[in-house]
Amino acid sequence: MLEKYLDYSAEVLEAKKAGKAIVALESTIISHGMPYPQNVETAKEVEDIIRQGGAVPATIAILDGKIKIGISDEELEFLATSNDIEKASRRDLPYLIATKKNGATTVAATMICAELAGIEVFVTGGIGGVHREAETTMDISADLQELAKTNVAVVCAGAKSILDIGLTMEYLETNGVPVVGYETDKLPAFYTRSSEFDVNFRVDDASTAADLIRTKWELGLNGGVVIANPIPEEHALEEAFITNVIETALKEAKENNIAGKNVTPFLLGKVKELTEGTSLTANIALVKHNAVVGAGIAVKLQK
Amino acid sequence: MLEKYLDYSAEVLEAKKAGKAIVALESTIISHGMPYPQNVETAKEVEDIIRQGGAVPATIAILDGKIKIGISDEELEFLATSNDIEKASRRDLPYLIATKKNGATTVAATMICAELAGIEVFVTGGIGGVHREAETTMDISADLQELAKTNVAVVCAGAKSILDIGLTMEYLETNGVPVVGYETDKLPAFYTRSSEFDVNFRVDDASTAADLIRTKWELGLNGGVVIANPIPEEHALEEAFITNVIETALKEAKENNIAGKNVTPFLLGKVKELTEGTSLTANIALVKHNAVVGAGIAVKLQK
Amino acid sequence: MLEKYLDYSAEVLEAKKAGKAIVALESTIISHGMPYPQNVETAKEVEDIIRQGGAVPATIAILDGKIKIGISDEELEFLATSNDIEKASRRDLPYLIATKKNGATTVAATMICAELAGIEVFVTGGIGGVHREAETTMDISADLQELAKTNVAVVCAGAKSILDIGLTMEYLETNGVPVVGYETDKLPAFYTRSSEFDVNFRVDDASTAADLIRTKWELGLNGGVVIANPIPEEHALEEAFITNVIETALKEAKENNIAGKNVTPFLLGKVKELTEGTSLTANIALVKHNAVVGAGIAVKLQK
Ligand SMILES: [Mn+2]
Ligand SMILES: [Mn+2]
Ligand SMILES: [Mn+2]
Repeated sequence: MLEKYLDYSAEVLEAKKAGKAIVALESTIISHGMPYPQNVETAKEVEDIIRQGGAVPATIAILDGKIKIGISDEELEFLATSNDIEKASRRDLPYLIATKKNGATTVAATMICAELAGIEVFVTGGIGGVHREAETTMDISADLQELAKTNVAVVCAGAKSILDIGLTMEYLETNGVPVVGYETDKLPAFYTRSSEFDVNFRVDDASTAADLIRTKWELGLNGGVVIANPIPEEHALEEAFITNVIETALKEAKENNIAGKNVTPFLLGKVKELTEGTSLTANIALVKHNAVVGAGIAVKLQK
Repeated sequence: MLEKYLDYSAEVLEAKKAGKAIVALESTIISHGMPYPQNVETAKEVEDIIRQGGAVPATIAILDGKIKIGISDEELEFLATSNDIEKASRRDLPYLIATKKNGATTVAATMICAELAGIEVFVTGGIGGVHREAETTMDISADLQELAKTNVAVVCAGAKSILDIGLTMEYLETNGVPVVGYETDKLPAFYTRSSEFDVNFRVDDASTAADLIRTKWELGLNGGVVIANPIPEEHALEEAFITNVIETALKEAKENNIAGKNVTPFLLGKVKELTEGTSLTANIALVKHNAVVGAGIAVKLQK
Repeated sequence: MLEKYLDYSAEVLEAKKAGKAIVALESTIISHGMPYPQNVETAKEVEDIIRQGGAVPATIAILDGKIKIGISDEELEFLATSNDIEKASRRDLPYLIATKKNGATTVAATMICAELAGIEVFVTGGIGGVHREAETTMDISADLQELAKTNVAVVCAGAKSILDIGLTMEYLETNGVPVVGYETDKLPAFYTRSSEFDVNFRVDDASTAADLIRTKWELGLNGGVVIANPIPEEHALEEAFITNVIETALKEAKENNIAGKNVTPFLLGKVKELTEGTSLTANIALVKHNAVVGAGIAVKLQK
């Protein structure tokens, strides 16, 4: 039944048959997260890093209503340049697939497709979370509910501080999702190596991370594991700088009566504007670093 | 095991054996939603519309602790006139069934019973949602959690605007529930054909709706699908009129220090008082229209 | 697979083989809930009460990474006196087990381990809930999500009124969890026999409670059932007294700018300080009473 929906690349199919470690990658970063041609370059470099780590990359996207598990160079170019790619979260998959449309998968949708394909590790930049002002807007990313129920480990650099990280941690705690620091006691915040929040647990090697993940699922404790891996020191933005950028942006938002659901896109735009090139460089660096860690964990899980 | 709890009408049992399309109907609208005798008349007319559409109606209720899947004329009369019928949501089913009581099933409980009986489509008036002031009261209908997990498509005219429709849409998005507009881009709001909110997707025929629903469940994406079907134009209330009614009611509520959980019943009462006959007529018209659409989708799903 | 994680005591293992009723007990009350030596004495007395009721007690804890289902006297002493015992909720189990650490199980984690061991009834003091100010802090105990999905009946004396009991009831309703009063119409609030809130249903004997629980699970309605059993009259604190204590504490919190997540520990400390010996005596009395009721229900469920 499922087979008719999934379309594996030759590389991934071979890896599955050989029992090799596979690492899922999302496509929102390609279609909506980075400008061209950096999106294509980064996607290819990240795939290569995973190969060098001894695993096989499986970039996931919806193309013509098929769930692609692994994409070709032409498909990557299409995802990176077309304007006809919807952002695909859990709620969007049935529509996009039934009506044969294209979709770039978010963290939530990539987790779903990875689980369908039997892939246990997924590398991304940052997870979605509880938005600032969510106390009144209830704007909470579907990524968090996916982490609560879908069996995929998500290697990321934490969540962006334009989100409310404290509320995000509370939501994950209520839903029983472990947030594991990789070589860190502090929760990283995407552009920065730390935040004011502690991770739940620290692990210092891929083997321990893999043990924790395997134990969770063997116990029947369904849901994801957040592996929070800080951005490499040399590319990290200053915490004071990024905090200042966000505070400036929040102040501007207030002055312009931007509230509720409009705050997040406004903050995203301001951060981009005020940090310019450095934020893109940082984003690329952290994703690559996550790929190194993710491949390592995937290899250990396969043993 | 399950069999001892379920009691099928002869018509539904035959339909199951013959592999015919079946459409579930709820009983709260009968016991608590409409006055007598309009409740009985409407229930019968809606059942007939479903039969004319090529499907078999299965009105669901709890009687003497049995889950009725399809009810007789006498049972309908009893549900429509007795004062001894509890409102039954998810949390109530075990108690009512174990202690052999009577219950009129809400959207949540009807979804549960439909799924137990293998029925995939359910026609109702409107779904529950996030209540106004839920930011502080946490008053959120159990219907939304049911939509997050139970595999039944719910054909409705949206949610009443006495609820907070924006927060309801956020909650459904977080939980991955598709809200599909049937021949509309705008989310209908029960008495009106539209609201300020967009649906997630628009479909224009039963076949596409059925494809989307089937795809969702075949992918293992558990949970419902909201098919939002606007009230027919000739029976729709004016958006300005109903907005004005609600604003008047909200103002009165504030003046009388009615807050939190007391707001919704107050608003319901005021809408009834200020719209009088027209709101009942509208309610009947939209349910009938939902029955037409629901039967069509059920027939397509059965193919 | 599961077997390697679970370590049964001889008594529990024998009970399982003989098909005897078993009642789970948590260990947070031992390690973090009561001072020494009252914690050891109470744990033993509660176990004996369960035996006298015709069931077998299974105190649950994580020791050296094993899930203990039933503990020895030495293990009890260790849990009661060591400083090296983590508080273990759902999110903590994989880490503690994979890294071979010790953990005292909360309501959520005890429910999980009980279900893994096939135990249907769990006796505790009180459940976690929605914290005061959770509208802004989103501080909601993982116990509530566990009640939403894990098939264990939890016999307790309600929730402490330092929590927001009204919001806790709303959250449970949204998630379809029945809150059943045992010989009471009013929700007990731990130290007091009642609160301003009604339970959903009242049952007056173990047999009816067991029927309700069995019916729920046979219908496939996954999740827990709260059996709210009021503290015995002779040990109950006065509602006016405890309300006054909490109001005094809330006032002090405000004067000292204690807000958000810091409110609950502050209130807990103040209640302890202002009620002194009486609150410990009450706590012991209510747990013992819950053990009587829990054993009775477990025996009925086993029939
Ligand atoms: Mn959102
Ligand atoms: Mn409610
Ligand atoms: Mn908490």
